[in-house]
Amino acid sequence: MYNIQGDKMNETIRIQLNRRSIRRYKDKEISKEILDTLVDVARSTPSANFTQQASLISITDTDLKASIAKICNQEYINTSAHLFIVVLDMYRNNRIACEENIDTEVLQSTDRFLSSMMDATLMAQNIVIAAESFGIGSVFLGSVANDAQAMIKLLDLPHSTFPILGIALGYSDDNADLKPRIPRELMHFENQYDIYDSYHESLKEYDETVKAYYSSRNNNQRVEAFTQQMASRMLVKHPVRMRLLEVLHEQGLIKY
Amino acid sequence: MYNIQGDKMNETIRIQLNRRSIRRYKDKEISKEILDTLVDVARSTPSANFTQQASLISITDTDLKASIAKICNQEYINTSAHLFIVVLDMYRNNRIACEENIDTEVLQSTDRFLSSMMDATLMAQNIVIAAESFGIGSVFLGSVANDAQAMIKLLDLPHSTFPILGIALGYSDDNADLKPRIPRELMHFENQYDIYDSYHESLKEYDETVKAYYSSRNNNQRVEAFTQQMASRMLVKHPVRMRLLEVLHEQGLIKY
Repeated sequence: MYNIQGDKMNETIRIQLNRRSIRRYKDKEISKEILDTLVDVARSTPSANFTQQASLISITDTDLKASIAKICNQEYINTSAHLFIVVLDMYRNNRIACEENIDTEVLQSTDRFLSSMMDATLMAQNIVIAAESFGIGSVFLGSVANDAQAMIKLLDLPHSTFPILGIALGYSDDNADLKPRIPRELMHFENQYDIYDSYHESLKEYDETVKAYYSSRNNNQRVEAFTQQMASRMLVKHPVRMRLLEVLHEQGLIKY
Repeated sequence: MYNIQGDKMNETIRIQLNRRSIRRYKDKEISKEILDTLVDVARSTPSANFTQQASLISITDTDLKASIAKICNQEYINTSAHLFIVVLDMYRNNRIACEENIDTEVLQSTDRFLSSMMDATLMAQNIVIAAESFGIGSVFLGSVANDAQAMIKLLDLPHSTFPILGIALGYSDDNADLKPRIPRELMHFENQYDIYDSYHESLKEYDETVKAYYSSRNNNQRVEAFTQQMASRMLVKHPVRMRLLEVLHEQGLIKY
């Protein structure tokens, strides 16, 4: 899929280009040393103005894991070797300022929300790349948003925090193929955003590639073009997720 | 700072743990082959439900670069070897659905905004790690939000998109030290979020480490503890950034 040659391919690039979501795991634990390393990589992630607005929760309690799997509606989470919940975290800095009697109202702004959202998301990607370097597969669980309020209760999350993603990890027992990506010219522009006359036309060849990808898979019978999938996703309106802004407001986030 | 030994250290982990922001660059171009590889790594980044809601704009026009450096209020951007703007992008999928006469109102939800925000941010981290693997330094420019509306105009960004970050890249001519990170026990929890009685007390040793870090630097005279920095940041209220939600609304984002 990618035509990268010579010294442009190295170990890190190979890992990044070959990374795919892994949802079936071998019955093999991840060592404490590796988990500690993943946490150190998470800690080392860049953050906006040194604010370090992200935290991690390791889910080691099997009942709690089962409750989260239920919220995510993804049974396989129970079989993962480790589960992290990535938390957007302005609580720490909020408390620091409160202890100095400094007003923290600014943390309710969209600006600060976005900067902490990015801190936490950069951390999430850093963790999965680090895991891959140890031969450990992973899948992001955006489905924690299926019931963010329940997640907040389960994890005792205070105000100024929000659970953005789960990361299920494990040694792969999955033969997932690399999913083909949209062509470069549709996502990489020069100096300005290029608008195409017809996206169906521009994505015609890619649609065929995606259909071929699905046809070649054993486990999944779906043979849908990319454009079909994207169009039909517009009709998915999960009733709880559609009220996510209310939960964010309750956490003291994006108030203005 | 990190105590990682034996086979827990590999090339990718080494890159991740040693990554720091680079703001001074050698006068050396980044080859087209490397830039293409960075774009391929960006393309390969995981996305929510295969939606691939992110795009990249390479800034090759020096006047445009200068305008962006002015918005960011960061002169050194002009001296970077390459500048990417990372764009949250639901426009593509919006157009796909519109071409099939399917209603796209759901893209205005906070849920879909967050999922595309994550797609774009995961991509940003993937790019800087890939760049490091070629010995290329980088810095994230959250400062594009200093005037998001101006950025949108400069780059001709359509509705359902938003410029989340810049990434300035170049071969390092910077001797920046690794900035010490908050202790593990303050950002990694087990099964539930741990609240501390006093954050100043819990961060006392870290505050000393941060002060020692600043004292040892040549270029920067600031000797502030971490808690001081975080507290004083609450008073920073950039007038334009405080109205970011309005710009997002104009782009058709986070409407509910």
